[in-house]
Amino acid sequence: MKKHNFYAGPSILPQYTIKKTAEAVLDFAGTGLSLLEISHRSKEFQAVMDEAQALFKELLEIPAGYEVVFLGGGASLQFCMVPFNLLNKKAAYLNTGTWANKAEAEAKAFGEVVCVGSSKADNYTYIPKGFEANVPADAEYLHITTNNTIFGTELKKDPDVKVPLVADMSSDIFSRPVDVSKYDLIYGGAQKNLAPAGLTFVVVKTDALGRVERHIPTMLDYRTHIKAGSMFNTPPCVAVYGALETLRWLKEQGGVPAMQKKNIRKAEKLYNEIDRNKLFKGTVTCMEDRSLMNICFVMNDEYKELEEEFLKYATSQGMVGIKGHRSVGGFRASTYNALPEESVDALIEVMKTFERNH
Amino acid sequence: MKKHNFYAGPSILPQYTIKKTAEAVLDFAGTGLSLLEISHRSKEFQAVMDEAQALFKELLEIPAGYEVVFLGGGASLQFCMVPFNLLNKKAAYLNTGTWANKAEAEAKAFGEVVCVGSSKADNYTYIPKGFEANVPADAEYLHITTNNTIFGTELKKDPDVKVPLVADMSSDIFSRPVDVSKYDLIYGGAQKNLAPAGLTFVVVKTDALGRVERHIPTMLDYRTHIKAGSMFNTPPCVAVYGALETLRWLKEQGGVPAMQKKNIRKAEKLYNEIDRNKLFKGTVTCMEDRSLMNICFVMNDEYKELEEEFLKYATSQGMVGIKGHRSVGGFRASTYNALPEESVDALIEVMKTFERNH
Repeated sequence: MKKHNFYAGPSILPQYTIKKTAEAVLDFAGTGLSLLEISHRSKEFQAVMDEAQALFKELLEIPAGYEVVFLGGGASLQFCMVPFNLLNKKAAYLNTGTWANKAEAEAKAFGEVVCVGSSKADNYTYIPKGFEANVPADAEYLHITTNNTIFGTELKKDPDVKVPLVADMSSDIFSRPVDVSKYDLIYGGAQKNLAPAGLTFVVVKTDALGRVERHIPTMLDYRTHIKAGSMFNTPPCVAVYGALETLRWLKEQGGVPAMQKKNIRKAEKLYNEIDRNKLFKGTVTCMEDRSLMNICFVMNDEYKELEEEFLKYATSQGMVGIKGHRSVGGFRASTYNALPEESVDALIEVMKTFERNH
Repeated sequence: MKKHNFYAGPSILPQYTIKKTAEAVLDFAGTGLSLLEISHRSKEFQAVMDEAQALFKELLEIPAGYEVVFLGGGASLQFCMVPFNLLNKKAAYLNTGTWANKAEAEAKAFGEVVCVGSSKADNYTYIPKGFEANVPADAEYLHITTNNTIFGTELKKDPDVKVPLVADMSSDIFSRPVDVSKYDLIYGGAQKNLAPAGLTFVVVKTDALGRVERHIPTMLDYRTHIKAGSMFNTPPCVAVYGALETLRWLKEQGGVPAMQKKNIRKAEKLYNEIDRNKLFKGTVTCMEDRSLMNICFVMNDEYKELEEEFLKYATSQGMVGIKGHRSVGGFRASTYNALPEESVDALIEVMKTFERNH
């Protein structure tokens, strides 16, 4: 039976990326060697790195003055790398979910951290409103998490504030156009919209670096990696290769604007069914905050006891990874760029059928 | 033409690992999904992580009281993580090559660093002798780099000193038995003897942790990863999978003792040819320090002008990655666990033929 991959991350990648990677694992770029055993210093791999960085810049429309670096270690490592490199005295953080909360906590060891808004007390069911006004004028940056994978909320546009933005875009990078000029830094784990797990992307304004006074360990200093073209140490080659193939696919599909259209269409369909179906309800309380990437829903109160049965039925119909995170419960359908519309249609059909049978 | 992979890293992996990974990229563990898009929280991936850690412990004969953790970020990140976690006041470092030198430099930001020996002035052509006697009794650890990938020297047995050892074993892990009980910590990039690039292994004595007073960022604290079973954040799943398949292969081949025998045999053959052939000479000045993993050689003085021609000829015969590192020049044949004896034989044949023709 066809499987529909709704995992929150690592998550669905284009079939194109999967096919190309499988081929490269057997023979990479006609070298007669596997992608798994090729030197990162070979000209063939250097070409992969160069094209991946160039396409990343092109597709996200990154202006001059920014660099794209590919690192290991995950977005969680960025929670300390960001303040190591950018926080001298004071930074503002918006607390919209588990990861935003972790980023904020980590920064406290480096300077004064001002929380400009939090929906933690309400289990992060919305994005705090009016946080822009709470950002101190002397904050060195405002840190935001543009999409909250666990709670299914999303800041769908770049906030207007008077200080530079820093954003964790792990789960919505390349899903919508971004005005990069508002940001000093954008980072994320690549394992949702871009590549297999093990790769972290960082888009950084070079002018923003070199302004802190503390000692920065070499590997945690963005300048190390910029200077070495992301080759200061051995990069996660397979994941970089996967990123390249996804970026090629993305370009061929019409780029970020085309993805955004498709993502809106998929999400609208699924939210409409959640709102229509008597069995279910969405968990996000403010409609405009509903994520286009992670769609969270639970059984309506009077049908609570059907939760396990629905999960079982959906699984039997090929739906994979729709169990909600334990912090929210219920269900979560992740609808990243690579998820085809037919997977959303299949899930809706499953919801309708289950409703008819109950 | 058959290619013989002598890359220094990323480098040759068993054909078994390559084949199994290619299969899993298309269908992982019968899930109908790709290894590239599977959740690290799925039961199928948890089984991979569990078995990889268990086999790692079994094959390296790791005693009780130690944990194995899999991280991202590369061995270079360990250069700061080690002192972050273990260096309170004073540590000893042995400077045997580029990476050892970097590890030592990084530690200086964390406490007093005593260099117990260095062959830097002699371009690292040997391992300093008698360094054991220079280790201060109050050093918290002695850091060594057991194999120097660039310069082709190797500490083939675990030194006897009165303080715990910490070792970078990036390029000789699983190539010889190790007395783990002498070490507080062993780390390395996995991209030589274990897995595709992007994975770092750490073997750590749990008792050695929690003794420093400084603040450690969450992701840089080994306890974070031990507590979460290497799943605090998304691990580099493909590389962990590759490690598992290599460990399975290693066990099937007879484990570490069998690898050591094979490695000694391969290295002896090649060193014998280097010593016999009138065109070449080894670069390591002390015979007992010659690495079993990276075999460095140059043209003899009177044949210097043939260097490029030999490289061209060897390449035309299927030899890949034998150009020496720029710090040494000449040639380097890396003979990791997965390199078959026939590749060494093929290289020797190329050296003999080239000699006959000159």
